[in-house]
Amino acid sequence: MSESSFISWLKQQSPRDPRIVVGIGDDLASMKWAADDLLLVGVDQVLDGVHFDSGLHEPHQIGRKAMNRNLSDCAAMACLPAAAVVSVALPRGAGEDYAKKLHHGLRDAADVYGCPIIGGDTGSWAGKLVVSVTIIGRSAGIQPITRHGAKSGDGVYVTGPLGGSMVKDRHLNFKPRVELGRQLAATGRVTAMLDLSDGLSQDLPRITTASGVGAVIDAAKVPVHADAKYLAEQTDRQPLNLALNDGEDYELLFTATGDAPIPGATRIGTILAEPGVWLQKDSSREPLKPQGWEHAM
Amino acid sequence: MSESSFISWLKQQSPRDPRIVVGIGDDLASMKWAADDLLLVGVDQVLDGVHFDSGLHEPHQIGRKAMNRNLSDCAAMACLPAAAVVSVALPRGAGEDYAKKLHHGLRDAADVYGCPIIGGDTGSWAGKLVVSVTIIGRSAGIQPITRHGAKSGDGVYVTGPLGGSMVKDRHLNFKPRVELGRQLAATGRVTAMLDLSDGLSQDLPRITTASGVGAVIDAAKVPVHADAKYLAEQTDRQPLNLALNDGEDYELLFTATGDAPIPGATRIGTILAEPGVWLQKDSSREPLKPQGWEHAM
Repeated sequence: MSESSFISWLKQQSPRDPRIVVGIGDDLASMKWAADDLLLVGVDQVLDGVHFDSGLHEPHQIGRKAMNRNLSDCAAMACLPAAAVVSVALPRGAGEDYAKKLHHGLRDAADVYGCPIIGGDTGSWAGKLVVSVTIIGRSAGIQPITRHGAKSGDGVYVTGPLGGSMVKDRHLNFKPRVELGRQLAATGRVTAMLDLSDGLSQDLPRITTASGVGAVIDAAKVPVHADAKYLAEQTDRQPLNLALNDGEDYELLFTATGDAPIPGATRIGTILAEPGVWLQKDSSREPLKPQGWEHAM
Repeated sequence: MSESSFISWLKQQSPRDPRIVVGIGDDLASMKWAADDLLLVGVDQVLDGVHFDSGLHEPHQIGRKAMNRNLSDCAAMACLPAAAVVSVALPRGAGEDYAKKLHHGLRDAADVYGCPIIGGDTGSWAGKLVVSVTIIGRSAGIQPITRHGAKSGDGVYVTGPLGGSMVKDRHLNFKPRVELGRQLAATGRVTAMLDLSDGLSQDLPRITTASGVGAVIDAAKVPVHADAKYLAEQTDRQPLNLALNDGEDYELLFTATGDAPIPGATRIGTILAEPGVWLQKDSSREPLKPQGWEHAM
């Protein structure tokens, strides 16, 4: 298959969308933008051998994960996905069928939110598979939630149980919390938010550092995923340890004012005025050291 | 170096910009968008061993090429670069200095047009270098020029001499024609445009096919780059052959109404009503077969 015939196929695959002025197949795509919308944008790539294993995982799964990681970033900002563009570095000889399955995975994830894929660049090379997705989001009436708004006394919350995301490839098959992110922000109580990609012990300090605060997490309140309990039984690790340090849960971690319960979330701690992130166990308080997935360069 | 310390460095490198609400370091960046601007977007990646050779080329050059290819897409649409995001798959162990030089190359190219880099994803892996740039452009008062507007009788033009872009790594050091693209579109005469990345014999059919027309190119009028003449002397190829078929010139190829000369461009042919792309040599007319850089998958 040639690149040009693949682009023709992509054009046929893409439904017409009244917001899109110029779609796939020109030098750039072009779209109308609502006057009162903030534009949000970010890029996130998945690499063979790091975020997936092309020897084990199907192209459809890989495409879906690549898109869902970006949709999860939309969730974390409480915006709506508006459009995506995708670059794919395809191993030479992978072939047309593989590229199409990858695209179907990307599309299946994006279609859930009516997010069109309006551009891309697919090239083959002697290397392994790289899929890089750029997502464009729109604020659509809700102020985006950043990482730097947490204040002393705010509660710390998560939207679901954590840990063991490698079990049964949950990290490939998660559902981004786009609607929930919007619902949370609409309460007016959320002060900072991100999605848990690298593990609570890595990601929580991103909020506290950006906000110039600290936090204490109540060990007994952290919701532990059944997969973490299962994995703990197979290994010599504690379920709580997996919940705190495993990555790729893609639940939302956020801070919020007030003490009333927040539907869809569990309070696990409190923001402190002084820097430092702590784990409270019964009567003892120990530092919560970042032990999650830190990317070395 | 860790990913988080690299992000801190990137944040320090990025000047404040009043349009940017949230910059590097959050889940997504956020920017204001002018109400009457169309949003343009595209992605273009460079791959080690395909678009550059990491064993020969400096990271600063590679970064600059990656950004300039995207700025050249803005030129082709006659829009202004508004922002960029970048994903980098970095060979494990490449190190901090390499990543910073790559970023400086990206920035040096983008800074020419005041285009901020507002987000990114840098990850290391066992593979070779991939740099994927997503460019966001704005129409800024000029209707974007697509590939599908060419009409029978329009002239076919190029903005500079073609061929031999491999000589002295010109394909790494070209200047995107952003201002010229705007000036051309502002004449009101340009009906279709693209940038010459894969060679005239490949790229011209993209305009004629999209527009449902044909074209004839006058062999004697095609401006041949001095690099093509030099390269022809070293090989058994003809300079004209290199001008027609080499890629990576990054000059603009466009069609326009009217017969008056167009400053900054050379007329090389005419659009025909019937499909088919031809090369006129003295009194004989032969098919102009695509022999440029076609990406197999």
